[in-house]
Amino acid sequence: MFQTFDVTARPDQGPPRLAALRSEIANQGLAGFLVPRADAYQGEYVAPCDARLAWLTGFTGSAGFCAALADIAGVFVDGRYRLQVANQISIGDFTAVDWPEVTLSNWLKEHLPEGGKIGFDAWLHTGKEIEAVRQGLAGSNVTLVACDNLVDRIWADRPAPPSAAITAHPTKFAGKSQAEKRNDLAKSLRAAGQRAAVLTLPDSICWLLNIRGSDIARNPIAQAYAILHDDAALTLFTGPGKADGITDHLGADVTLAGLDDFAASLAALSGPVRLDPATAPLAIGTILSEAGVEISQGDDPCLLPKACKNPVEIAGMQQAHLRDGAAMAEFLAWLDDTAPKGGLSEIDVVRELEGYRRATNALQEISFETICGSGPNGAIVHYRVSEDSNRAVQPGELLLVDSGGQYLDGTTDITRTIAIGQPSDEHRRCFTRVLQGMIAISRLRFAKGRAGQHIEAIARIPLWMAGQDFDHGTGHGVGAFLSVHEGPQGLSRINSVPLEPGMILSNEPGYYRQGAFGIRIENLIVVRVAELIEGGDARDMLAFETLTFTPIDRSLVDVEMLSAHERDWLNDYHREVAEKIGPHLSPKALDWLTRATATL
Amino acid sequence: MFQTFDVTARPDQGPPRLAALRSEIANQGLAGFLVPRADAYQGEYVAPCDARLAWLTGFTGSAGFCAALADIAGVFVDGRYRLQVANQISIGDFTAVDWPEVTLSNWLKEHLPEGGKIGFDAWLHTGKEIEAVRQGLAGSNVTLVACDNLVDRIWADRPAPPSAAITAHPTKFAGKSQAEKRNDLAKSLRAAGQRAAVLTLPDSICWLLNIRGSDIARNPIAQAYAILHDDAALTLFTGPGKADGITDHLGADVTLAGLDDFAASLAALSGPVRLDPATAPLAIGTILSEAGVEISQGDDPCLLPKACKNPVEIAGMQQAHLRDGAAMAEFLAWLDDTAPKGGLSEIDVVRELEGYRRATNALQEISFETICGSGPNGAIVHYRVSEDSNRAVQPGELLLVDSGGQYLDGTTDITRTIAIGQPSDEHRRCFTRVLQGMIAISRLRFAKGRAGQHIEAIARIPLWMAGQDFDHGTGHGVGAFLSVHEGPQGLSRINSVPLEPGMILSNEPGYYRQGAFGIRIENLIVVRVAELIEGGDARDMLAFETLTFTPIDRSLVDVEMLSAHERDWLNDYHREVAEKIGPHLSPKALDWLTRATATL
Repeated sequence: MFQTFDVTARPDQGPPRLAALRSEIANQGLAGFLVPRADAYQGEYVAPCDARLAWLTGFTGSAGFCAALADIAGVFVDGRYRLQVANQISIGDFTAVDWPEVTLSNWLKEHLPEGGKIGFDAWLHTGKEIEAVRQGLAGSNVTLVACDNLVDRIWADRPAPPSAAITAHPTKFAGKSQAEKRNDLAKSLRAAGQRAAVLTLPDSICWLLNIRGSDIARNPIAQAYAILHDDAALTLFTGPGKADGITDHLGADVTLAGLDDFAASLAALSGPVRLDPATAPLAIGTILSEAGVEISQGDDPCLLPKACKNPVEIAGMQQAHLRDGAAMAEFLAWLDDTAPKGGLSEIDVVRELEGYRRATNALQEISFETICGSGPNGAIVHYRVSEDSNRAVQPGELLLVDSGGQYLDGTTDITRTIAIGQPSDEHRRCFTRVLQGMIAISRLRFAKGRAGQHIEAIARIPLWMAGQDFDHGTGHGVGAFLSVHEGPQGLSRINSVPLEPGMILSNEPGYYRQGAFGIRIENLIVVRVAELIEGGDARDMLAFETLTFTPIDRSLVDVEMLSAHERDWLNDYHREVAEKIGPHLSPKALDWLTRATATL
Repeated sequence: MFQTFDVTARPDQGPPRLAALRSEIANQGLAGFLVPRADAYQGEYVAPCDARLAWLTGFTGSAGFCAALADIAGVFVDGRYRLQVANQISIGDFTAVDWPEVTLSNWLKEHLPEGGKIGFDAWLHTGKEIEAVRQGLAGSNVTLVACDNLVDRIWADRPAPPSAAITAHPTKFAGKSQAEKRNDLAKSLRAAGQRAAVLTLPDSICWLLNIRGSDIARNPIAQAYAILHDDAALTLFTGPGKADGITDHLGADVTLAGLDDFAASLAALSGPVRLDPATAPLAIGTILSEAGVEISQGDDPCLLPKACKNPVEIAGMQQAHLRDGAAMAEFLAWLDDTAPKGGLSEIDVVRELEGYRRATNALQEISFETICGSGPNGAIVHYRVSEDSNRAVQPGELLLVDSGGQYLDGTTDITRTIAIGQPSDEHRRCFTRVLQGMIAISRLRFAKGRAGQHIEAIARIPLWMAGQDFDHGTGHGVGAFLSVHEGPQGLSRINSVPLEPGMILSNEPGYYRQGAFGIRIENLIVVRVAELIEGGDARDMLAFETLTFTPIDRSLVDVEMLSAHERDWLNDYHREVAEKIGPHLSPKALDWLTRATATL
């Protein structure tokens, strides 16, 4: 499905819906109700039937929640969404709250000095999340109580849940059979003395069973829950009929069941049962506890093996990136030819780019809604062009394009910032600093055991030294034909997961000048064991290998600012781009590529 | 007191002492007893009467503990002390255990499969420490039980506790009166709804009351406990008569009491009482709980204000560093003149250096036992020369000297690595990489909110890129005429305390080649608010200002490896050293300094 550019927020619908919700709240004898963005699977994106926060408030961001009380309804959003929320909600009816600076518990205590009961749907919140709020409320008379979902009661025309068929993901892409994966995890359960593990993250289940789905736009996942037993038997809980076509793929050790059977199956388990309090809905822990099943808290056991890609997955990611790189080169050749003439809009650019990806005949989906910001729109980090915001791509400005494709063999995510016509010296200086940071990560060798938080600042030094910075992480984990944002690894100041060979990350420093321009340069990289260096010590060290091969705009590079190492890296990179991508291009794009990758 | 070079470990005494301890353990019906290095104040150094671990086992390192069971006595030491412990304990009687890789709880479970009671002295372990062991023992039949100190029972000639008089530390050095400090902390207690705070760290108490002592070698602290009330009144608990000379300084709001009164005073408190589980002895929490006093867990409230030095303290640190830098320059001039001729030993060098510091007539103490390692001894990170290990300082080798002084106005800590005669190219390459890392930290500007763990790797990049690294943190916090190792800030991968203006740190990357040479370059730096840069953004950024002014050995710098920025930094630094230190030198040392700081 091609990206659309409709304006989806309906601030006008907020007030009557809020009034209806408040009457349900009052009927229940509650003082309020929590409406999170999350669905029962805690993914980054939700199906239309789960877009409760957007339906109620108009706010369409990917994180946040509403706390609706009788007299005030707070919409809690983080720094990324401060501007957006103000445009999407009906101010006066809803109140934007700066989160996490203001915590839910403190806000509730302030607005309910006498106390009261706040209802919430225990399937939409993790145990960890509710526990944190409860700790914050300790000593007050405000309490959280699980109840029915009151939004669902008033949402008359709520869409049906996704029902797309689940498909098998062949071992030639996955690199390991689902039976083997189940056996490996079962072994670790036995070693930990755990009888079973409850799996609630769709991408964990898809990875484990080598299956994919299309329940959520842009994410090739299937919504499901699973119980893995310590003998490697597994029960998969999905919507009706969704898994009917994959029974042969799953084999005799995997039992299919309906989502309606999930609670009873949980209650019938023998403990200890491994459950991840950070990702599993609170309701699951409640069901287990009430049934007297011992819970052993621990990370979702799929997280690490899913993150550490095997050689087949890495080879697939490489193939996907060559294909995607060729589409990007065709696109950039077109853009360089067309944009300086004027007349292009951001939407034109997004459509053209998606067309080149579709022309590969291998695109399953784009990885996410393309971010395409010209001039000042480039400075809005999570900008998504709509018919309302659409802007002409004008000479003398920068254009930031962040996009990706989902292919059967891998997922891509790439950002390039392109000068339309002649860039200014300031554009070039800022771009070069961002490039220097991106090169520093690309070239880095580092000691085994380090996490993203220990090295991500290395991408910021050139900016810091010039009094500049950017307000997002340096990179995130990426799945293999799975979620484009995948944990547990990441290049951010809060990520303490040691980097391990096979982990794939984005490397995407940026610089944003509000009202003027945005710069971001993003490649995907994979963690590799570093080869020993002549004269170096026999230490376990790691390094990154670049997966993304697409030219970096030479007209934006101030060569004088680069060190010899940085310049060599860029020239080597461009030589490799030409070698790998050139053979797959049209004559016109090849001609462009030759110029775009010439030695600096 | 001048540094001595005696060999203090007595491995031969271990076996009979262990036998005596085991018979006490059996008498108590216990399965074992824990003997930590720590004393009841959890400092890095201990008084002779508290050196229980060394007395029992022979091991003299600054961290570790012994778990004595009937059949095995494990001496748990970390990576720094693996070699040392093997030389100091009687192998066969004692067993070295790799800690923290092997945890105490796992080790106990392995060696006591049937279970048993392990005794410990609740004054020598923090609540956090015991809690962690108890969690690790959950599900086993091994339990920890607080009891009398069994080592003290068998230690017939145990030295008396320190009894040195406490002295006032004038406001002209402290920058703020003790009454003002107490009032500030009391205000924060009231804001947190806490009625009192129990203080157990001597350097916290010394900072708060502007007092100093000499209970512990090399540390100008007084052993004491204190209770600060929310009205700013304070009770100071010390050994008999130690505080008699400072009653005027302390004033009417500070009450003196004996250590014997401490437990009763704790039990008489009205809660909530703030207590730091990470630093306070478990015994204190037990006393409070048994008396029904509510505990409010929280960091020692002195930690952050002590770490963020005020302008007077920073000015004092600068003065101390000029004085110390002049002594270092005299020393280095002497060394450059004398060492190449041969005949010097490591002990000669340590004595000479201490002499130059004493000649300032301002030295209170050296900051720690000087580390002076020639050739292969330089590769032993915590090397301390003794009569046994003493080695000739030979041409063609590197000499690593890590030392410091305690002055009334400040504490210094500096490491220089000096080529004796002509260094090899490999010496120069490795030294230059270490220098590049040290310069990178010195020059760094960084975003407010970052902690040591986010930036310390920046000092490692030149080494990492060459396949090298060093196995210690990049830097530690430093006190102002207090502990040379002071928290909570630090440049290490595990330090998550955001850096704040006024915090003082060491910046000391190194490189060690076992059996060959060691390199470390260390300056102290202070965190400052960074000035806005022309063309930069209006962001809150921080930077470091260097406190240490002593030449860096030019003969070890491979100028070809330096970037223009790095070369400029070094030349600017040397110019500043010449300007600041030159006026304080003897003619001979000045002549040397002029050569040692010439432009590269």
